[in-house]
Amino acid sequence: MTRVSTLPVVVFSLFFATVAAADEGMWMPQQIPALGDELKELGLQLDPASFADLTGFPMGAIVEINGCSATFVSPEGLIVTNHHCVHGALQYNSTPERDLINDGFLAKSRSDEPQATPTQRVYVTTNIDDVTAKVVGGAKKGIGDTARANAIDAKKKALVKACESADGIRCEVSTFFGGELFLLLTQMEIRDVRLVYAPALGVGNFGDEDDNWMWPRHTGDFGFLRAYVSPDGRSADYSKDNVPYKPAHWLKVSTRDIDPGDLTLLAGYPGWTSRLVSADEVRAAQEWWLPTENRFRRGLLAILREEGKRGRDVEIANATRVSSLENYLKKYEGVLEAFHRDGLLDRKLEDEKHVAELVASKPELAKRYEAAAKEYASLLATERATRDRDLVVRYLSTSSPMLSQASVLYKLSIERAKKRDAEREEGYQERDWAQRMNGVKRTQRTIERASDRAGLRFALLEATKLPKGQRIEAIDVALAKTGKAAPEEQVESLLDALYSGTMIDQQDVRLAMFDEPTAALVNRGDAMIGLAAELHPLVRRIEDQALANRGARYRLRPVMIEALRTAKNGRLAPDANGTLRVGFGQVKGYEPRDGVIYLPQTTIEGVLRKDTGSRPFDSPARLLELARAKRFGTYADPELGTLPVAYVTTNNVTNGSSGSSAINAWGEVCGLAFDMNWEGIAADWVVNEKYVRTVIVDSRYMLWVMDAVDGAHELLREMGVEPQF
Amino acid sequence: MTRVSTLPVVVFSLFFATVAAADEGMWMPQQIPALGDELKELGLQLDPASFADLTGFPMGAIVEINGCSATFVSPEGLIVTNHHCVHGALQYNSTPERDLINDGFLAKSRSDEPQATPTQRVYVTTNIDDVTAKVVGGAKKGIGDTARANAIDAKKKALVKACESADGIRCEVSTFFGGELFLLLTQMEIRDVRLVYAPALGVGNFGDEDDNWMWPRHTGDFGFLRAYVSPDGRSADYSKDNVPYKPAHWLKVSTRDIDPGDLTLLAGYPGWTSRLVSADEVRAAQEWWLPTENRFRRGLLAILREEGKRGRDVEIANATRVSSLENYLKKYEGVLEAFHRDGLLDRKLEDEKHVAELVASKPELAKRYEAAAKEYASLLATERATRDRDLVVRYLSTSSPMLSQASVLYKLSIERAKKRDAEREEGYQERDWAQRMNGVKRTQRTIERASDRAGLRFALLEATKLPKGQRIEAIDVALAKTGKAAPEEQVESLLDALYSGTMIDQQDVRLAMFDEPTAALVNRGDAMIGLAAELHPLVRRIEDQALANRGARYRLRPVMIEALRTAKNGRLAPDANGTLRVGFGQVKGYEPRDGVIYLPQTTIEGVLRKDTGSRPFDSPARLLELARAKRFGTYADPELGTLPVAYVTTNNVTNGSSGSSAINAWGEVCGLAFDMNWEGIAADWVVNEKYVRTVIVDSRYMLWVMDAVDGAHELLREMGVEPQF
Repeated sequence: MTRVSTLPVVVFSLFFATVAAADEGMWMPQQIPALGDELKELGLQLDPASFADLTGFPMGAIVEINGCSATFVSPEGLIVTNHHCVHGALQYNSTPERDLINDGFLAKSRSDEPQATPTQRVYVTTNIDDVTAKVVGGAKKGIGDTARANAIDAKKKALVKACESADGIRCEVSTFFGGELFLLLTQMEIRDVRLVYAPALGVGNFGDEDDNWMWPRHTGDFGFLRAYVSPDGRSADYSKDNVPYKPAHWLKVSTRDIDPGDLTLLAGYPGWTSRLVSADEVRAAQEWWLPTENRFRRGLLAILREEGKRGRDVEIANATRVSSLENYLKKYEGVLEAFHRDGLLDRKLEDEKHVAELVASKPELAKRYEAAAKEYASLLATERATRDRDLVVRYLSTSSPMLSQASVLYKLSIERAKKRDAEREEGYQERDWAQRMNGVKRTQRTIERASDRAGLRFALLEATKLPKGQRIEAIDVALAKTGKAAPEEQVESLLDALYSGTMIDQQDVRLAMFDEPTAALVNRGDAMIGLAAELHPLVRRIEDQALANRGARYRLRPVMIEALRTAKNGRLAPDANGTLRVGFGQVKGYEPRDGVIYLPQTTIEGVLRKDTGSRPFDSPARLLELARAKRFGTYADPELGTLPVAYVTTNNVTNGSSGSSAINAWGEVCGLAFDMNWEGIAADWVVNEKYVRTVIVDSRYMLWVMDAVDGAHELLREMGVEPQF
Repeated sequence: MTRVSTLPVVVFSLFFATVAAADEGMWMPQQIPALGDELKELGLQLDPASFADLTGFPMGAIVEINGCSATFVSPEGLIVTNHHCVHGALQYNSTPERDLINDGFLAKSRSDEPQATPTQRVYVTTNIDDVTAKVVGGAKKGIGDTARANAIDAKKKALVKACESADGIRCEVSTFFGGELFLLLTQMEIRDVRLVYAPALGVGNFGDEDDNWMWPRHTGDFGFLRAYVSPDGRSADYSKDNVPYKPAHWLKVSTRDIDPGDLTLLAGYPGWTSRLVSADEVRAAQEWWLPTENRFRRGLLAILREEGKRGRDVEIANATRVSSLENYLKKYEGVLEAFHRDGLLDRKLEDEKHVAELVASKPELAKRYEAAAKEYASLLATERATRDRDLVVRYLSTSSPMLSQASVLYKLSIERAKKRDAEREEGYQERDWAQRMNGVKRTQRTIERASDRAGLRFALLEATKLPKGQRIEAIDVALAKTGKAAPEEQVESLLDALYSGTMIDQQDVRLAMFDEPTAALVNRGDAMIGLAAELHPLVRRIEDQALANRGARYRLRPVMIEALRTAKNGRLAPDANGTLRVGFGQVKGYEPRDGVIYLPQTTIEGVLRKDTGSRPFDSPARLLELARAKRFGTYADPELGTLPVAYVTTNNVTNGSSGSSAINAWGEVCGLAFDMNWEGIAADWVVNEKYVRTVIVDSRYMLWVMDAVDGAHELLREMGVEPQF
């Protein structure tokens, strides 16, 4: 059961606060009761305290699936999430004859529900324990920062190991507020997950990349899975004998009207934000990190696109990398633009000044804060001193899947040689080996020799341009050895040697390397392994420095957070870290730029207007027909006078929030979050309430598509909704 | 003086009408009095009848300048128009040391006002005469269509010649309602026009192509000229002795508040619309003309862009053609999109059905209408039968400035040989020769041999793909003569012969050809002249057919227009034809797509937000400084609480409307029209009131820039506005 009582007093006692904007945080469920007054004012009909009980209503219905959030919506383990979160399942179950991605899928009956994918999981958070004392207790005051980080890591590993003793249980120690708080999270891991229903791609992905991050939006981004367990209710591998999981709680899908101003709670597993970082870190992102890494992305992207012109097979091999680079580039170009446009650094600097001023009245805290902030600034300066080099080292792997594989295999051989599993680095422990093996296999599809070489050329040329004091010695030595003079010729010559001397692009070779001791691996004389081995001491040094910095952060960040919280009258949500969170906000449009107003809701008229009959604006014929005939049943919106499709709220989300249920004042699912808006794209760093919105598909649109377009009547009945079509 | 009394009764008596949308027409000034009730209802404070008096207030202040509309705004001949309409004058007066385009220009005093350009003119319409009886009277019933067209053309030419007897007078017979009405327009031509003031490019062209056709907009698109005449008040060539022209009327520039719903009249010289064409013609545009010509534009554009990569000189030579192709392609792609998106053909078909139904109750008209419509349909079928060929013939010239020059020079030699000037084709008469000579010189800049050849290759290849029955015999013969088999080889071989055998790319050669008789010209043996001569019989035939079709249209269109007007209860504006018009509308935003509202007004906040410090969003530093300091004087808008920049109204415009004054209810200039909106881009064919808007720069923004940013205080005083900065 949930033991919230062990959470530190500071978290609970300090946010009675002045009433602030409702929309700045992704709160820990345990923080919600203290925000009760605000929520009541916004219209909440449930007891705010109920959100702190993770196994009660409504939080017991909120689950995590691979990389997404989801919700139980029937007593029979039915799970609703985004269409893009069931994309893998549709792909896995497609055949040359049955294109489920394009056509959608509706299981005729329970027995017709296929396994989603072998690796699809559903995680139900069942317990949260405050283990701060245990974790930090091992790290005595005055020990060095590296020792501190190691001590904390060891404690975390031990706690996870002890917690994971039973089958079907996954545990994790998560860090909150920069190390002020450590929570041990226990989750039930459901391993038999099946595909139930998804609309056609022309609904679920209507608009695709054209509309990605955009509002107004017209995407029916929803899909359904079902959790199965053994007949005795325990987590089990996929089996015909398994039965639907009976969750203790599930949420009703709402058919209520939604209007501007209505309260929406978002419950899910947001991945990562950096809102509590210092202004110095925002400045570094704006001035160096975003522009530099975007330049790297653009460079690599241009190379891979050019290589792709050689043939469709090359294009396919590079497709995943290209699409990932495109995605990040678009996002981070938008973020950089927003930083400048909205003056986010100035905002952050103002905030920091404000904190210092407010804290000044508490001499003891002020003293600690000043000292921590000063030491933190010098820690950042240390990181800055080698940041160009460190980024190039990272891009040596990013640019070359072959070198990346060599590095992983080399490191694995070293970690494996360690006697005790606990000494091995995270990601290289026994529990990770199967996953690593899968990675070695999976990478095969994305390895294309000539593209790999072209990519590595790019990264090596960047290495040749590094400033003094940040040189990569292993690369300098290797280039000098070629005997050439000009950097371009040196790089070409080194590439000749590397690619004529490696077979690491072959899967069987890599699999053979997988278990080899370091000496045997090196003795193969594979040139790419050789480069990885040469680079390894530097990689190690960078990791060691990162470990020490982490140890320092564990000391310094909590002090800075304490000051920040004090300045905010105790009302402070931790940065997202992949754990269960609840945010709240209201349905609300915005003014994206001078002279333009974005309404808070979109309608089916917009689908008709956007539809071109071809991707990505290709609605199913039946949807168009019903829409043109205005056959909306009771799903139409009374005020809009037509069928609603999506809406935006002042909630905020990040990667991992996809599929989060929007929960209305009565605890019903009134929509599913599936995107953030372009104007609010910098929200991972700074939330500008004027622009930051979450894009949500309206539950009434989902129900109408299920009912009228796809005839998913049995599912509707299972969810307690009477079909109308 | 204006003689409106001679206008046909039909125009004046038939539009008492039911109150219809205020925004569908560009009315003849003479039609305005009959629309008085509507205008009064919209708030007009002036006597509606005053608009019919072209030499009275306010129409006496409205003038035409080269390709744009403009307005007298002081008793000293000061003229306001768009910045993009004085661009040529800024270019002409720029030197390597003084970049007026970029920096803007403000004459320190009267004597500091330079000649705008030698060809800059100001035309003041002084008289309109209904000459329908005279023009049509010469064309007896029952004569053939060619004869009819010739008779009408001859009458028009004679009337113009008689009218233009005095110096400084320009006359024109314009066709209204497809030939139902012919008006002889008399204009005073002012030949000494000077540059007075223009803001910096970062104001006058803020947003440039990025914002072209777009709303919301933040461009200060205004500039000032001054008309000069001889000391005795007559039109005269540029001379130091000339004095400012004293217009009988000028308009006050308004400092009044503008709010949504306010009445705006637009007075200017819109160029060309096709709103009264038949549904069949709209269908042909949608199904054939727009897609086909856009394909040609895309093809030619790709070629010229590719050629431009050879060097900056090539790029410069092709720049005008590239930018024109881009402009038209963007526009007509938008038009085609709007046709489909808004179902404009269906709308037109509905309209036509409606006309037929309403006319049915008037048997005599119904009979004539049916017969005319039927014959018109068969005329369109005739045109359809050769449209592919005719378009390729046109593109042979469009794709090759060298062939185009050859064709003009060849035709000139033939027309010049005719004994009587009146027999010569329009554009090849004595009055046109000087202009033709200028054209021959001016073209030199845009001739680039290799690009010319690449363009002509494109058009010739299109010719080889023409269907049977639409072949261009001269091309077929020339290609067959090459002795090659494949079309591509034939074209290449023909091009070899053409470009090795022509010197027409040399200006002195063309100037020598200019006066040559046809035989001498042909005897030169220039290959390009040879091809032009071979093509000439077909060009002639196409022109003859067009002449016959025009004759038929003169018979048929007036009947169809009569039916249309009857269906519209007499309320019908003629299509734009470059003559003085008045439209009216209201300040009003719109919903461009589902979930988005465009407000009717933009503000200086939008300038600050769009400004990037570099083209095309590079406001002058002083503007930014004043804007950030919110120093707006009394120019701020009370409701908006800040400085207004631009607004949209339900008026509609087309090419040539640029610079039209927006006139408020009191007859003051409250803004200048400078663009139409993207969503209403198909308005030349069909006006969809939901989307069609005119983009207007607010007079208060203009005055603020003049006053606060550029210190044009003397000008303001001349206009009766007291400076505040």
